[in-house]
Amino acid sequence: MAEIEVGRSILEANDKLAGQHRERFAASGVKVLNLISSPGAGKTSVLEQTLKRLQGRLNCAVIEGDIQTDEDARRVAACGVPAVQIQTQGACHLDGVMINEALAALDLASLDLLIIENVGNLVCPVDFDLGEDMKVAVLSVTEGDDKPSKYPALFQQAGVLLVNKVDLLPYIDCDMERIHRTCHQLNPEQKVFDLSCRTGEGLDPWVDWLTGWAKG
Amino acid sequence: MAEIEVGRSILEANDKLAGQHRERFAASGVKVLNLISSPGAGKTSVLEQTLKRLQGRLNCAVIEGDIQTDEDARRVAACGVPAVQIQTQGACHLDGVMINEALAALDLASLDLLIIENVGNLVCPVDFDLGEDMKVAVLSVTEGDDKPSKYPALFQQAGVLLVNKVDLLPYIDCDMERIHRTCHQLNPEQKVFDLSCRTGEGLDPWVDWLTGWAKG
Repeated sequence: MAEIEVGRSILEANDKLAGQHRERFAASGVKVLNLISSPGAGKTSVLEQTLKRLQGRLNCAVIEGDIQTDEDARRVAACGVPAVQIQTQGACHLDGVMINEALAALDLASLDLLIIENVGNLVCPVDFDLGEDMKVAVLSVTEGDDKPSKYPALFQQAGVLLVNKVDLLPYIDCDMERIHRTCHQLNPEQKVFDLSCRTGEGLDPWVDWLTGWAKG
Repeated sequence: MAEIEVGRSILEANDKLAGQHRERFAASGVKVLNLISSPGAGKTSVLEQTLKRLQGRLNCAVIEGDIQTDEDARRVAACGVPAVQIQTQGACHLDGVMINEALAALDLASLDLLIIENVGNLVCPVDFDLGEDMKVAVLSVTEGDDKPSKYPALFQQAGVLLVNKVDLLPYIDCDMERIHRTCHQLNPEQKVFDLSCRTGEGLDPWVDWLTGWAKG
């Protein structure tokens, strides 16, 4: 019971900070995505492919959340986009305090789109509002078609689902229909894009949609 | 600061329960594994393939941790092995209290090996000792060769690493050498088995080793 109470007060404090960040983002006219997935679903690859296609269309920046290493921030910076690395030192999700520190390094007024890449974790990041406009879920087909029903919270809350690594479908047992059906049941409003960062398949429709959304 | 203190007291309470379970396991002569991985790395498939090969060699039972659904427990029960499902209802890891409840449904004295399949999460389960003799990490090659350095805690603590889905290596960019090298740096004592639940490759050496370990 004490654990639940404390958990609630931590989430309340985080929600308060998220509300402040949401106001700041709106005042600066920047749209914000919170990118969430399992480790290895391909968040950073999706980010690289997306940023390349957004060049000249939107001014972007990235906040990179990792437990250890700054490898992802370096990959993103190589795309010519400002990238701020947060190393959580063991923490399993990003929170408002970390975002607050990262924002000090960014000029929000110059941006159209800020993408926050969360720690690879299908569970904990979902509970921590970062002030984003939308959560984007990345699911790789190699994780299996049972994941949306086994980890429903993210798939319920994500405005967009990116189903990645579809180039591997011929070599694995994965029922795409089941993924689509389960996610539609969990969130009928969700936009779904099937794609492969390896072949490039499906990336243009996603980036076109994202451009429209960010400008809207 | 309050958060850190509370976190510590939760972990201390869990450690105490884990110590009691560890004594109970030892008194019953049952060896216990704590199976940890990302969602979709293939824990349940590894479990199915392992249990089939252990038939007639070891008396096994399984505790299945999932956030939602009892799909995994049904898959394990289909292997003819007692399976107890824990649905964590949103919690991102198993803890001592959950294990305590599950143990009420098992006859430990009749078992040689108890395998606990944790919630799919590369981060949080590592902090919660369940009284196991050994943590077993499952990493699928599709998650990428950077995962051990980005999520080092599990790979440091796991006595065994199972590198799964090696049948997909021809279709992806994954440097097996890097996985082996990083894990060896993190834990030079770790036993490593490369395997594929789809082709069966590498499963016999792992199960032979496990049989010897459980009887030892």
